[in-house]
Amino acid sequence: MSQRIPVAILGATGTVGQRFVQLLDHHPWFEVAVLTGSDRSVGHAYGEACHWLMDTAMPEWAAKMQVLPTTPVEYDVAVAFSALPAGIAKEAEPALAQKGIAVCSNASAFRKEPDVPIILPEVNADHANLVKAQRERRGWSGLIVTNPNCTSTGMTVALKALQDAFGLKKLFAVSMQAISGAGYPGIASYDILDNVVPYIGDEEAKVEWEPRKMLGTFTGESIELADFQASAHTNRVPVSDGHTLCISVELGQPASVEDAAQVLRAYRGPEIARDLPWAPNPVIDLRSEPDRPQPRLDRRTGKGMSTVVGRLRSDPLFHLKMVVFSHNTVRGAAGGSLLNAELLVKMGLIPAP
Amino acid sequence: MSQRIPVAILGATGTVGQRFVQLLDHHPWFEVAVLTGSDRSVGHAYGEACHWLMDTAMPEWAAKMQVLPTTPVEYDVAVAFSALPAGIAKEAEPALAQKGIAVCSNASAFRKEPDVPIILPEVNADHANLVKAQRERRGWSGLIVTNPNCTSTGMTVALKALQDAFGLKKLFAVSMQAISGAGYPGIASYDILDNVVPYIGDEEAKVEWEPRKMLGTFTGESIELADFQASAHTNRVPVSDGHTLCISVELGQPASVEDAAQVLRAYRGPEIARDLPWAPNPVIDLRSEPDRPQPRLDRRTGKGMSTVVGRLRSDPLFHLKMVVFSHNTVRGAAGGSLLNAELLVKMGLIPAP
Amino acid sequence: MSQRIPVAILGATGTVGQRFVQLLDHHPWFEVAVLTGSDRSVGHAYGEACHWLMDTAMPEWAAKMQVLPTTPVEYDVAVAFSALPAGIAKEAEPALAQKGIAVCSNASAFRKEPDVPIILPEVNADHANLVKAQRERRGWSGLIVTNPNCTSTGMTVALKALQDAFGLKKLFAVSMQAISGAGYPGIASYDILDNVVPYIGDEEAKVEWEPRKMLGTFTGESIELADFQASAHTNRVPVSDGHTLCISVELGQPASVEDAAQVLRAYRGPEIARDLPWAPNPVIDLRSEPDRPQPRLDRRTGKGMSTVVGRLRSDPLFHLKMVVFSHNTVRGAAGGSLLNAELLVKMGLIPAP
Amino acid sequence: MSQRIPVAILGATGTVGQRFVQLLDHHPWFEVAVLTGSDRSVGHAYGEACHWLMDTAMPEWAAKMQVLPTTPVEYDVAVAFSALPAGIAKEAEPALAQKGIAVCSNASAFRKEPDVPIILPEVNADHANLVKAQRERRGWSGLIVTNPNCTSTGMTVALKALQDAFGLKKLFAVSMQAISGAGYPGIASYDILDNVVPYIGDEEAKVEWEPRKMLGTFTGESIELADFQASAHTNRVPVSDGHTLCISVELGQPASVEDAAQVLRAYRGPEIARDLPWAPNPVIDLRSEPDRPQPRLDRRTGKGMSTVVGRLRSDPLFHLKMVVFSHNTVRGAAGGSLLNAELLVKMGLIPAP
Repeated sequence: MSQRIPVAILGATGTVGQRFVQLLDHHPWFEVAVLTGSDRSVGHAYGEACHWLMDTAMPEWAAKMQVLPTTPVEYDVAVAFSALPAGIAKEAEPALAQKGIAVCSNASAFRKEPDVPIILPEVNADHANLVKAQRERRGWSGLIVTNPNCTSTGMTVALKALQDAFGLKKLFAVSMQAISGAGYPGIASYDILDNVVPYIGDEEAKVEWEPRKMLGTFTGESIELADFQASAHTNRVPVSDGHTLCISVELGQPASVEDAAQVLRAYRGPEIARDLPWAPNPVIDLRSEPDRPQPRLDRRTGKGMSTVVGRLRSDPLFHLKMVVFSHNTVRGAAGGSLLNAELLVKMGLIPAP
Repeated sequence: MSQRIPVAILGATGTVGQRFVQLLDHHPWFEVAVLTGSDRSVGHAYGEACHWLMDTAMPEWAAKMQVLPTTPVEYDVAVAFSALPAGIAKEAEPALAQKGIAVCSNASAFRKEPDVPIILPEVNADHANLVKAQRERRGWSGLIVTNPNCTSTGMTVALKALQDAFGLKKLFAVSMQAISGAGYPGIASYDILDNVVPYIGDEEAKVEWEPRKMLGTFTGESIELADFQASAHTNRVPVSDGHTLCISVELGQPASVEDAAQVLRAYRGPEIARDLPWAPNPVIDLRSEPDRPQPRLDRRTGKGMSTVVGRLRSDPLFHLKMVVFSHNTVRGAAGGSLLNAELLVKMGLIPAP
Repeated sequence: MSQRIPVAILGATGTVGQRFVQLLDHHPWFEVAVLTGSDRSVGHAYGEACHWLMDTAMPEWAAKMQVLPTTPVEYDVAVAFSALPAGIAKEAEPALAQKGIAVCSNASAFRKEPDVPIILPEVNADHANLVKAQRERRGWSGLIVTNPNCTSTGMTVALKALQDAFGLKKLFAVSMQAISGAGYPGIASYDILDNVVPYIGDEEAKVEWEPRKMLGTFTGESIELADFQASAHTNRVPVSDGHTLCISVELGQPASVEDAAQVLRAYRGPEIARDLPWAPNPVIDLRSEPDRPQPRLDRRTGKGMSTVVGRLRSDPLFHLKMVVFSHNTVRGAAGGSLLNAELLVKMGLIPAP
Repeated sequence: MSQRIPVAILGATGTVGQRFVQLLDHHPWFEVAVLTGSDRSVGHAYGEACHWLMDTAMPEWAAKMQVLPTTPVEYDVAVAFSALPAGIAKEAEPALAQKGIAVCSNASAFRKEPDVPIILPEVNADHANLVKAQRERRGWSGLIVTNPNCTSTGMTVALKALQDAFGLKKLFAVSMQAISGAGYPGIASYDILDNVVPYIGDEEAKVEWEPRKMLGTFTGESIELADFQASAHTNRVPVSDGHTLCISVELGQPASVEDAAQVLRAYRGPEIARDLPWAPNPVIDLRSEPDRPQPRLDRRTGKGMSTVVGRLRSDPLFHLKMVVFSHNTVRGAAGGSLLNAELLVKMGLIPAP
């Protein structure tokens, strides 16, 4: 690719927006041309407007850029990465798609729309083709694709491997989620130090539903939800980054721990998604130690893009128990949208300049 | 009671032993006459031998007492509270029972013995009568009763209320456990800061089995295990004190959230256990806020003896979901043994002096 | 005292306000008659308006009270405890004093006024008499007294003992402060988990100046600042409650560690302040262990009102080094104001009803 | 360099040993040929013997290596990196030097020896020449050099810049140190969660003395200690990695904040140390934000090798106040020893193979 594709980061000053800036630094295909923010930031240099929270230095190119308003869309890019709050996304993302921009959104606003796919390239790259129906129906020259809620992300990758091999009937999932998932300032320190908060607003419904869409079947026109039932409990714990889930799974047919391990270890995902710049490598890191995965030790696996699975064992009620981990603001947010954009380019759904 | 009953604390220098010392300070029925410890401590004053970790000052009477060896049993008490490691408990506790001492043990060594009850007075006070068969069979003038693993404790109280009203068929339980449950020094800080450890050795089997014994039926000779299946995942989180569990329950018959709430709120336990000095008050604190219980806010409820339940709601797979909390080193350890001893006195199984 | 004195808590829904509610529950002299809050809370029951963060249950009398506006002052009390933000305190507190109410303020708004004392009863009870000059000068029938910044509190108690015995010339102080000192929501969890923030706005100037006023001399008309120089660094650490300070002190004359220990241990403060209901007991708890004080172990000493000192040793540059600890929202905030009110009653500056 | 120099890591299974393994992966000059450990590990593959705690995967070459005993020295390398406990270092390091091996030690055992330099290449590269006198005096063909205590490290870099420009007379330093500095298992989680421990054994004496040696003058035969006095308080805080110090400095001559900032920003260290593979870049990162440095945000600066300074301001007692941060197990331990070895190679004190 001789020339990089110009992209915008919408909501660039928040924690997910900052993660986009960090991950897009030196990206081989994309070049950040626009950073947008709220009224408070607009007109200021990003370096001044943004309370930078990443543990690597802010890239110099970003520090110098002037923050633009998200709407009206008076900027010209091929791709817009959206870290917008759901309410603003609801208005802004269709306006961008209307203008011919490919919106790769981390927001939840459109995930439930029948013609908007929720994509994890290593799981359901083919769902990206739903955007053809979307464009036709909505008269857009651009498009909207979404990535799932951060808590659904790693779990869905592991479930996909098992579903392909054995089918999937029931799922119990209990999460222990990092504070970065609540944004910034997000959860008050006095609420979470030496504590667990066993509640995250609206999260359980997402975790019970989104995997069914991603693991569903693309018919050419729409997605048929996968036919399994899920029950989720979601919790906030004093961890900076990375969501850990304990899951119990009833499969379509029984499987031994050994066979399941083999399947998880061998899983590579659709071929088209394997060699994208930010593709997870490995897709699944199956650990054999008794006490892994752990957020502090596993959050950097595959540059934060891998799904880490461990403690695979029999379940007294269902078939299998295991622990699934993934990085919530990398794989589960900015990295997820970024990988989706790479997939769209690879599939010819975003033209290279 | 005009004169207090002399008691021993076995393993008094560890964290559970210290909690016994703290809770027995000014106890109306019991007076600590003996503190035992390991070779390193024996012969020293408790105040010197013990690295005190409680957040109230060490009682002066304790500081002055000389630490004795646990065995041979050359001390004379009516009750021994055991905070011994399982391996040492295996030897020492029968020796004490043989000598006529009532052992109220927090150790796991004898919980699986058919003639040793696991007792939560507000759940299964009647199981204490199993000690008659125990004495007969083993030829003891003393006895051994145990309290459950700290993680089983609060959950079993909540389950008892539901079982009585609706029956109980399946249980899915995921714990987020405090570091104090691992003893001292226990878990290294570098392993748990900004982290979750999704593994606690041998814990899941206990959590899946012990409630079945406590919720089982005392036949006069033995305990028939309750007929339900459980699946547990146990995790360590960066919380100082108090275990939080997310549970999903399939009942014997469907129950609405309102009916279940009513049952939990009304639960008082067997009459004989209600007015013991350390009886939990309330037995169950059912919270209606969306985000409770939480360890930091709820660990002192009922002086750490209550079971706190919250987030009661429908479950898509089973009938009900909820969050259950109890203090692991108070209700789940030292306070549990203490309450068992109070029950035995009340039932006439330990004679008052 | 046959009848309790009616008091108001201003800014009752914040963390310091909640601490006032907790500490005033069952107070022998005072009865809470009024709770005030911001517009958002006014008109609601306190139990609904307040996101309760204390680890004991909200008193029932508080839950039922309706929250009133702070101004205009249309309520009738003898004492107002102020947990107001400095900006609002600036307006509201004089209005209350004008109306004849004794304002015991935790706010910083008036601490620098020459006729407003900063009082720690165990240090400078006599400074309370400054309110006579204050009333005369300002034409108030009420009064305003303040307690110091939470970080200055414990340190000033320890310094007073040393100053009385040896004089005081220079002070280095570095704080490690709890997150509760930042209010609620206060500091974001993502800013403090696994982290230290070496900056607290405006704090260092307070810590360098307030002790000089409290350790100064009351001339009958005003306070002459104590003649020593201080240098402070203030830091936020991941601790829920309790501020720890490392201090190095140059005295007026050299003192051995033993003599200084003797002085600290013997310090009892002015006689008039010794038997107030919330007087610290002990005033200073001098620890001899090598590694104390520690927030988790020492924050409940003297019901959170004591100053805990440890690690007393020689300093290579100045005379003495030590570590000083006190509870920031009890002794350093609500408990401090409460103790001041008790002192004023005892001194006859607030008439009993 | 066509061939890499064979090196050993002594005490390779501990946390500092693991950090050596991590940092030496793909090193351009050095190749790990030997890993040593304690009796428990000897004879096992490193991948099995070592409870890996780093947040990147264990290099495959390391996992396969067999752990050897540290002594007797029956292995052949040019350099030995020592992460040994002081007691074992005392015996083993001279034996290695005797055998012709260059020991770059992180242990404290020999730091006080007059003929053993404590080296920070960006501060006192010239002190490395002291090994000539050392070899002569001790009859060694090898040598021992040390790096300082982790807490002295960053502070000494900042002080060097100021000393060169303005001289140095007095230093007051208070540390807030990460738990990784205590090794593994090190500090118990129950001791540090929601807590500060204001004591670290033997640490303060090191922090008061070691900088005087490093900032001293190499006379050709020995080091004359720098002529300033220091007072240190050292504390443990709940931070995983990275030590933060608040320091106040009295200079030889007054300097404005602006001049000091200029000096710190411009500091580059001796030319010979500037382009070593692990040389810090920048040497000093002077932050202008009001609230930096912070461990979570700054620990990766310059791959963990930079000294990060912030909050530079006037001091009411001395001349300047500031906050200094450096990564304790990278710059302050393994990375420090590694950089010392690189310096020795560059200076021709270790022959390339």
